[in-house]
Amino acid sequence: MTTTVITNIGSLVTNDPALGEGPLGLVGNAALVLDGETVAWAGPAVRAPAADHRVDAAGRAVLPGFVDSHSHLVFAGDRTAEFNARMSGRPYEAGGIRTTVAATRAATDAELSANVARYTREALRQGTTTFETKSGYGLTVEDEARALRIAAEHTDEVTYLGAHIVAPDHADDPAAYVDLVTGPMLDACAPYARWIDVFCEKGAFDGDQARAILTAGKAKGLLPRIHANQLSYGPGVQLAVELDAASADHCTHLTDADVDALASGDTVATLLPGAEFSTRAAWPDARRLLDAGVTVALSTDCNPGSSFTSSMPFCVALAVRDMRMTPDEAVWSATAGGAAALRRTDVGRLTPGARADLTVLDAPSHVHLAYRPGVPLVAEVWRRGVRVA
Amino acid sequence: MTTTVITNIGSLVTNDPALGEGPLGLVGNAALVLDGETVAWAGPAVRAPAADHRVDAAGRAVLPGFVDSHSHLVFAGDRTAEFNARMSGRPYEAGGIRTTVAATRAATDAELSANVARYTREALRQGTTTFETKSGYGLTVEDEARALRIAAEHTDEVTYLGAHIVAPDHADDPAAYVDLVTGPMLDACAPYARWIDVFCEKGAFDGDQARAILTAGKAKGLLPRIHANQLSYGPGVQLAVELDAASADHCTHLTDADVDALASGDTVATLLPGAEFSTRAAWPDARRLLDAGVTVALSTDCNPGSSFTSSMPFCVALAVRDMRMTPDEAVWSATAGGAAALRRTDVGRLTPGARADLTVLDAPSHVHLAYRPGVPLVAEVWRRGVRVA
Repeated sequence: MTTTVITNIGSLVTNDPALGEGPLGLVGNAALVLDGETVAWAGPAVRAPAADHRVDAAGRAVLPGFVDSHSHLVFAGDRTAEFNARMSGRPYEAGGIRTTVAATRAATDAELSANVARYTREALRQGTTTFETKSGYGLTVEDEARALRIAAEHTDEVTYLGAHIVAPDHADDPAAYVDLVTGPMLDACAPYARWIDVFCEKGAFDGDQARAILTAGKAKGLLPRIHANQLSYGPGVQLAVELDAASADHCTHLTDADVDALASGDTVATLLPGAEFSTRAAWPDARRLLDAGVTVALSTDCNPGSSFTSSMPFCVALAVRDMRMTPDEAVWSATAGGAAALRRTDVGRLTPGARADLTVLDAPSHVHLAYRPGVPLVAEVWRRGVRVA
Repeated sequence: MTTTVITNIGSLVTNDPALGEGPLGLVGNAALVLDGETVAWAGPAVRAPAADHRVDAAGRAVLPGFVDSHSHLVFAGDRTAEFNARMSGRPYEAGGIRTTVAATRAATDAELSANVARYTREALRQGTTTFETKSGYGLTVEDEARALRIAAEHTDEVTYLGAHIVAPDHADDPAAYVDLVTGPMLDACAPYARWIDVFCEKGAFDGDQARAILTAGKAKGLLPRIHANQLSYGPGVQLAVELDAASADHCTHLTDADVDALASGDTVATLLPGAEFSTRAAWPDARRLLDAGVTVALSTDCNPGSSFTSSMPFCVALAVRDMRMTPDEAVWSATAGGAAALRRTDVGRLTPGARADLTVLDAPSHVHLAYRPGVPLVAEVWRRGVRVA
């Protein structure tokens, strides 16, 4: 393979404490050697081995590409009017998720795929090199399977979320809908998905339903993750730990027992500040989780209803300002944390053997992602060793 | 002159209620005709007059270029370590403004000018077509005049802020520093500036000092504006109205009498949410000001200490989420509001005779600036009729 050395890196985030300072494994005046699609070496520039090509980072910061472990990109339509009314304090008969379900069912495969491609490109330009995405706006056997087939054209991290809400068609018989989700819909969807997810919340699925759904998914070889404790206290987080889910997502309303459970298990707490931002909700308490030793990830929750941002840098800035993470913690959670929430070790770090997925910032340090909020600082994005944005 | 019609505009913000719906003068399915540097016509696409050239906006939204009426771009150095310590809860001997004063004094003219150019370009890519910028990191006769001379190379909206803080060299004789600011420093600076500003705050300049400074500036033909009521209650806002300042900036701590004064005069209240974001301070109450009939502008306050963002879209999103402005109000305040805060009628609107300064969003509506926070939505920027970004 051809090797490339990126040198004159002002500050390199490796996420390997053995390679540099602190949990981020920070190296100043650094270099990174890529061998094809893979990181071959990371360390001080003065010690960098030779390579076929040389790229000068001009003192800029380099960090692993963001890993966005929670998004809902297979949808059609938008909900501008609903958002505008909510933020303007005007009454509005909001259809919520149902509005997007209707628009998504009515869209063609090509329209849905183009939409996923559009938001993927948008996220890539902002430094996201790995992303998970979910179904959940189809809610019939055919529409859920279609959503996952389309998602799988764009990413390996595909999540079956037939249990997003009870399908409008089954509103008066939720038990029958759970049977569908755990039966024929699961059969149709499992071939396209790595993960199974459920929205465990009042008005969506209760703890028993969520357990049934995730357990059925596990039996089909899917790995569990869960929307838990977003809008109210509930059983989701402890269920996630009990089932060894990779991640409990949202975690806005947590009891001490929830925090203890997360700290004792291998389930990552994935925080989605875009959702609290766009719904004017109270912030999850990241500080409490971190201080208890919980592994925290940050993700966008990109969806047209409650969090229509694709920007991981924006989520980092919110996490620091409003969830009291330090800039270092937020950057770790948006990279290595996201990888942990997807049980991946090949991304979210820039260490020998990892995928050469990285972001060059137009700034000397990763701290600038919080210090310069809203500013598009991502100057270059490399994926699998190739400069793609 | 050559004329250009931009047609197939999904939604056009004119900021002229006579041209369209509401205070934004919104026109759906719109066209805009430019004649050289100027807007010649705005209205429904089906009624657009012919032009020499035709540009298809492909259904995207068009709005006036942002008018950023408050920034501090003539500086050197950065304060990453101070920001990082503040947000991480670590003790840090912060030099604050003094740190930047020392770095700015030590910089060459070329370094300072390059810095202004860099942040101006960055802001332009985010849709800012008019910006004000200040001195205030020199604090000697020579360094203040130099800052303004450099600022004037980049913008017409130049503000003399010798009264940013009492210069460290005069720390034990503030009265002598006020004499300098209103005497030799003013004489040296007035030729380069349109505006005079003062930071009226405990620890900076009190009401009497602020009145003396602004009054001296007015006598030299400078127009007053003021940093008022940012960190605490104080006399700044009422002084601004008394002196017919164009703008009272920050307005975070207001009494009912302050709000009444603003509502009764022609002084704009300029809110700077980037500062509250980056210092974890309480938000100004935009709703209260708007409901009282005060004219509100939004601006970045871009500076390396308390608000290192150049992003007007980010400020719009914060204004909606955290200051309870509607998306329409926030967009108006970031365009027409900023123009009012600079007493300009030629920018901040897209009406016949106005400057052809505009932004094309990669979105169907201006609401997306708040609905899609953090996402770089600015697809094109036109200044004086020329596509520049």
